[in-house]
Amino acid sequence: MMGKLNAYVDRMSQPCRAILIFCRLNGIDFEEIKVDIAKSHHLSPEFTEVNPLQKVPAILHGNLNLFESHAILAYLSSAFPGIADHWYPTDVIRRAKINSILDWHHSNLRYGAGPAIGRPRNPKAAAEAEKVLLSSLSKLENIWLNGDGRFLLGSFQPSIADLSLVCELTQLEVLDEMDRGRILSPYKKVLGWIEDTRTATNPYFEEMHNILYRAKKKFQQQRSRIAESGTETTNNRGRHSKM
Amino acid sequence: MMGKLNAYVDRMSQPCRAILIFCRLNGIDFEEIKVDIAKSHHLSPEFTEVNPLQKVPAILHGNLNLFESHAILAYLSSAFPGIADHWYPTDVIRRAKINSILDWHHSNLRYGAGPAIGRPRNPKAAAEAEKVLLSSLSKLENIWLNGDGRFLLGSFQPSIADLSLVCELTQLEVLDEMDRGRILSPYKKVLGWIEDTRTATNPYFEEMHNILYRAKKKFQQQRSRIAESGTETTNNRGRHSKM
Repeated sequence: MMGKLNAYVDRMSQPCRAILIFCRLNGIDFEEIKVDIAKSHHLSPEFTEVNPLQKVPAILHGNLNLFESHAILAYLSSAFPGIADHWYPTDVIRRAKINSILDWHHSNLRYGAGPAIGRPRNPKAAAEAEKVLLSSLSKLENIWLNGDGRFLLGSFQPSIADLSLVCELTQLEVLDEMDRGRILSPYKKVLGWIEDTRTATNPYFEEMHNILYRAKKKFQQQRSRIAESGTETTNNRGRHSKM
Repeated sequence: MMGKLNAYVDRMSQPCRAILIFCRLNGIDFEEIKVDIAKSHHLSPEFTEVNPLQKVPAILHGNLNLFESHAILAYLSSAFPGIADHWYPTDVIRRAKINSILDWHHSNLRYGAGPAIGRPRNPKAAAEAEKVLLSSLSKLENIWLNGDGRFLLGSFQPSIADLSLVCELTQLEVLDEMDRGRILSPYKKVLGWIEDTRTATNPYFEEMHNILYRAKKKFQQQRSRIAESGTETTNNRGRHSKM
């Protein structure tokens, strides 16, 4: 045994939630250490020692400090005993395919879904991010979900790629319902896959997303107040979340 | 045996060069199939069948089609017999650290070094990319190269992360010498590491970069002609390559 596992996370961050869900689902014993981004705790000397890049998520496992969520998920799958093989298959070809999706995630879905909701005050960046997001959704629908099974690559059970990408897309929850519907509804396989991944990883999926659902409620109330006070025109409101 | 390996590449692309160098260096038998990006060959139906995302590099190995350069390098390291362990260590912890650097590469160095030389006509994007590049170089210098050995993570032999990141940085070769010096010279460890990786992977490193050195010469001549004709002010010229 390598000793204690600490997970340094902020549940408002989608890759952090993926790691928490993975650990809980697989019975990995760990301590959740909150790094509150809104309070700049990621810049503290204590956390910088764990991750000199000052980003969550990060883990400390015995002497090993590790960051980047994909690397962490792959590590946890390999380092802990008894993790079901479907999460990160040992088969060289299946693993290569999952790595390929995870790499694709970096420069596509991650790039699109993050900024799409994170930069409402910069309409040009938001529009650009939405373009990337829609293109990514189309690729998910027509390439990655184009198989027999319900999960990525036509698999019958989820992998760390399903978990990672669905957590990314769930970030869209904070959007206005109409916006979320407009963006996601053309992608029927994607919608089914989000539901299937949610189901396969519950109750932990819901538990870790509670914070997001609460944020969503808050944003809805804000939007209602703005609409009532009439300070925004119909044209401006709701294209992107008011996060 | 899985059958024939085809590598679909354009040597003008840095991740393509990394894969070619890796294969040659490790005696992997393959066929190089040129996908000329400048001629839009990546959009052809034949190549789309290999990579529906229409990007190089991609490989076809028996029935397996695979894309994303990191996933390809990891796959080649595992699927072919006799590849030295230092390229992609089987040790779970060392592999996790290398994966972490490769993931970091996606949203940092890759994002910075690519656009820094690719968008000379968009000064704002180029300036933003240079900022990312300088921050990435500083992290390489102070975090990733902060160990006993000459390679990333203080290793004494190169991994696929060294190869991948050094190929990225070599793209800066096409810059004006003064610009390249201005950008790289403060980072002594980075400069040493580029040289060490080049040496460790020669003669294939030079062979695969010849195309870039030729492009560099062409750009230099273009810059000289522009300077002589006086069509650009001193202020404008040379901040980024005229690629």
